[in-house]
Amino acid sequence: MQDQRIIMGIDPGTRLLGYGVILVDRKKTHFVDMGVIDLRKETDHFLKLKRITEEIGALMDRYHPDDLAVEAPFYGKNPQVMLKLGRAQGAALAAALLRGIPVHEYAPRKVKVAITGNGAASKEQVALILSRTLRVDLSGPHLDATDALAIAMCHFYQLTNPFLDQTASRDWDSFLKSHPDRIVKP
Amino acid sequence: MQDQRIIMGIDPGTRLLGYGVILVDRKKTHFVDMGVIDLRKETDHFLKLKRITEEIGALMDRYHPDDLAVEAPFYGKNPQVMLKLGRAQGAALAAALLRGIPVHEYAPRKVKVAITGNGAASKEQVALILSRTLRVDLSGPHLDATDALAIAMCHFYQLTNPFLDQTASRDWDSFLKSHPDRIVKP
Repeated sequence: MQDQRIIMGIDPGTRLLGYGVILVDRKKTHFVDMGVIDLRKETDHFLKLKRITEEIGALMDRYHPDDLAVEAPFYGKNPQVMLKLGRAQGAALAAALLRGIPVHEYAPRKVKVAITGNGAASKEQVALILSRTLRVDLSGPHLDATDALAIAMCHFYQLTNPFLDQTASRDWDSFLKSHPDRIVKP
Repeated sequence: MQDQRIIMGIDPGTRLLGYGVILVDRKKTHFVDMGVIDLRKETDHFLKLKRITEEIGALMDRYHPDDLAVEAPFYGKNPQVMLKLGRAQGAALAAALLRGIPVHEYAPRKVKVAITGNGAASKEQVALILSRTLRVDLSGPHLDATDALAIAMCHFYQLTNPFLDQTASRDWDSFLKSHPDRIVKP
């Protein structure tokens, strides 16, 4: 892995689009930015897609990420909802692909395992560990962007430990031993 | 409507992406180009999206369309398929939206009504009437791009007759009377 690396994570929905940016400097992670693009008041479907691709593109031009990480979606039951979600994601991904930024996809469970060691961890548990690791306050309005930040961190763990898949299936004790920084002390 | 106008229609699928371009010159339509972007050999999902947004973008930079028309998708039953289709469409739409090209969406039935007067017309009937109106051979390899050309023509009819929705529900005899050019003579 190169000495410095910017990783952007996005959680692209049709109502709120969360993003998180981290800097990896000699294997240490630093918080850079996080936020939410609020699309709830945008009633026109195509203007919504336009805002997604333009605003995500502007963030990429600001931070020049080396990698984009996105959450592989769970598959909902409503095909119409899935098509709209897919269009929103396609518009966001196009912004990265047009800039030559490679895209990496992680299943929600894998993100949770990477951060907490537990694939069934709650959003709050993920936020607690992330806020400690990155020394950033994740309460309040930032909660919507936590998933995006978690996806970026998941990509960092994948880069530094390509065997994440295998370690994920190991037991909890060995996870704690190998990740002492992720034990939340009371 | 301005004197000259370029309309691009696209039929964005995940395996084949058809496109058709027409020139409207003082309310007369002229065939410009049509073709298919073949994505079947592209196994990487993100490289597929990259190709879509880049190649559709290149076509737009070549023809500078005033409008993009796309078919409003029918909703399949498989949410995973719909998500992938949505991503492909989002990547194609992003190419237009980044260039400030307005996007118009038409239901498949509306496209068929606009071209043939019959919402249940077959692909072959649509191709027959289109080939006559635009004086172009639509048999053989071009059949996959016929839908895209039909969508572009549908947008032209909508521009010249904003009451298309209402006329669509009129009876067949009055459609033939008002569209003598679309009667296929044996």
